[in-house]
Amino acid sequence: MKVALIGFGNIGKGVEELIFKNHKKINELTNRDISVKTVLINNKGKKRDPFNKNIVFTDDFNLILDDEEIETIIEITATEDEAFYYIKDAFNSGKNVITANKAVVAKYFEELLYLSKKYKVKFLYEASVGGGVHIIKSILEDLPFNNIKSISGILNGTCNFILSEMTKNNTEFVNSLKKAQELGFAEPDPTSDITGIDTLRKLRILSSIIFSKKVSLDKIFLFGIDKINASDIKILKDEGYKLKLLGEGKRQEDKFYSYVMPVAIREDSVFYNIDGATNIISYCGDNIKDVSFVGEGAGRYPTSDSILRDLLDIANENAIEVYAHDNKELVLSNEDIKSRFYLRIPKDFYDFDDKFIDKKFETRENIHLFTEKIYLSKILDLFSKVDRQDYFLAKIE
Amino acid sequence: MKVALIGFGNIGKGVEELIFKNHKKINELTNRDISVKTVLINNKGKKRDPFNKNIVFTDDFNLILDDEEIETIIEITATEDEAFYYIKDAFNSGKNVITANKAVVAKYFEELLYLSKKYKVKFLYEASVGGGVHIIKSILEDLPFNNIKSISGILNGTCNFILSEMTKNNTEFVNSLKKAQELGFAEPDPTSDITGIDTLRKLRILSSIIFSKKVSLDKIFLFGIDKINASDIKILKDEGYKLKLLGEGKRQEDKFYSYVMPVAIREDSVFYNIDGATNIISYCGDNIKDVSFVGEGAGRYPTSDSILRDLLDIANENAIEVYAHDNKELVLSNEDIKSRFYLRIPKDFYDFDDKFIDKKFETRENIHLFTEKIYLSKILDLFSKVDRQDYFLAKIE
Repeated sequence: MKVALIGFGNIGKGVEELIFKNHKKINELTNRDISVKTVLINNKGKKRDPFNKNIVFTDDFNLILDDEEIETIIEITATEDEAFYYIKDAFNSGKNVITANKAVVAKYFEELLYLSKKYKVKFLYEASVGGGVHIIKSILEDLPFNNIKSISGILNGTCNFILSEMTKNNTEFVNSLKKAQELGFAEPDPTSDITGIDTLRKLRILSSIIFSKKVSLDKIFLFGIDKINASDIKILKDEGYKLKLLGEGKRQEDKFYSYVMPVAIREDSVFYNIDGATNIISYCGDNIKDVSFVGEGAGRYPTSDSILRDLLDIANENAIEVYAHDNKELVLSNEDIKSRFYLRIPKDFYDFDDKFIDKKFETRENIHLFTEKIYLSKILDLFSKVDRQDYFLAKIE
Repeated sequence: MKVALIGFGNIGKGVEELIFKNHKKINELTNRDISVKTVLINNKGKKRDPFNKNIVFTDDFNLILDDEEIETIIEITATEDEAFYYIKDAFNSGKNVITANKAVVAKYFEELLYLSKKYKVKFLYEASVGGGVHIIKSILEDLPFNNIKSISGILNGTCNFILSEMTKNNTEFVNSLKKAQELGFAEPDPTSDITGIDTLRKLRILSSIIFSKKVSLDKIFLFGIDKINASDIKILKDEGYKLKLLGEGKRQEDKFYSYVMPVAIREDSVFYNIDGATNIISYCGDNIKDVSFVGEGAGRYPTSDSILRDLLDIANENAIEVYAHDNKELVLSNEDIKSRFYLRIPKDFYDFDDKFIDKKFETRENIHLFTEKIYLSKILDLFSKVDRQDYFLAKIE
């Protein structure tokens, strides 16, 4: 089996290395001679240094599509619509696709499932969520026999690193972000991480799988950590909480919820000690009960390893499909999310019914509240008058 | 595909229920009509109440062996040698075997691997370690591409429940054990749990898999929690530690270690918050780095769910074999385990070189020590004069 890569960045290089170095083992495990034949890149002029010196680098995708030897394409760009067209064309040419690209899977999940079925090819995307953590395959194995009623995860290493730093060292957000960038845990442009969009994409994929319906990106409630400040962390810490950016999907009776927001965690939770760039994903099924997976959510080798295992599953015809997925959109009831919350509100805008307040703190410009159980929608009403960057909220677990 | 069960206790009933209730889904997923046909039991007179009313209960194993319709046998007894003969005969009759029985897998792992290959049948044993946690399949998927250098787990829910109880309520061992028994977390005869033998068996299976060699039960260092008392927990707690019974396997350069013993854990560890009957298993590979799996280590439905997934893997021809397993025995270097330790020694026997002592406490009859880094063998020498039930040790992490 010849393989083509789309993209030759950090992950692409890792995949090429692992396929090359494990050639003999892969042969043993699959009875197939698997190697990377062609790599699609934008800049043909750039010098490349693959392990397999026979690899052809091309900027012509047709060279891959028309090559009948190539059975599987591994897509590892960070594009969205562009990646979708690549994958669509690949399916259309009868090629299996493996992707690590959460943007394209999150935007086009149902279309991709549909097209891969239509063209009778395999489509695997383990590395799109949780890097080296094999969460998707595990869910797909559990799903047919388990009514999975909830999923919850620390899905973004950058945010978790920043929050851990702020908690440990009482630093401000900007300093912790800078440190994350210096250490390579955050991109030069960290927007999609800190606003929660990266977590949102992963949650969209996970929610859609466990609920067997389309969970649209724009229907998931999203509140990132970009507006956090040191006082939030400190006040929560004094009350015994650590803050984590979570993506959560829940089914309660006939209602479904899916949201990304900061959550204040108590120290008896398994999530409490998941610090730094580590990811954790938990789900709960009726037979298996609660299971959690902890591991490296990103990085060249963990991610490449997940891709390699997808490749083996395709070669061994072990690829598992999503069970009974319904393309219809799931109606979420996020307006009914009821919980205790931590809130920070500028004093000028403070207008809150005392009966919902459990604890109240003041800093120079802000009021900080721990609420009783209250609807999220009520809080958002209150905040509608406040400028987006002047307030902060966190669910209290 | 017709299936036979050996045993119809708690797990057997769960397996029968899940196969019956998921009949249609299993059919969809495997394109095979799978049902339980026959169950081997000891007491034919006892009234049984299976979901599938057509099941035949028999005490004649030949009825199963000679039945050509039966392709797979699920062995769920708690026997050791007896189970081995059942499985051997099943292989010999061309039948696949799934077992949840850690005793037989731990005692005969290499023989079972060899015989299943010889007779060209499948042999799966996911439920023998960690109940509903799918740890074995995950390791088998990672193993070919990862030099797995360590594994570590809280593998016994009974011990973890007792230790959590003692820590939370400052109770004595016997009271916590009694409570565990009342709540169904401990057997009427808890010997194999509290002495660490159950953990030892699971560790033997896991160590053998990750090191690709036979790790003999009697070569693994074993120290259980049956001799613990409330003072141990209290002193460790005051120093910031929680105690967990761990099974660990480690490779350091060319040396291998495998041991079951109480380990004192700091609060920044993921293991720290794994309380009650929950299990956690972590391993570390060179590509995937550290991954941890948390879940229910026992119970009817989690365990039956693992068995069901094994059954599906057999029906779909997805069963993964141990990679490159060598039947030769692995030489362990447990005498070279060097660590800080917590020790409790009767005053009468106290004879310890001060230079190895970090901290020292006294209770009425005992000396309690926190050592500097020291060889385990040195401690065992010291203890050789002391009666087994009068001392206690824990590794400090």
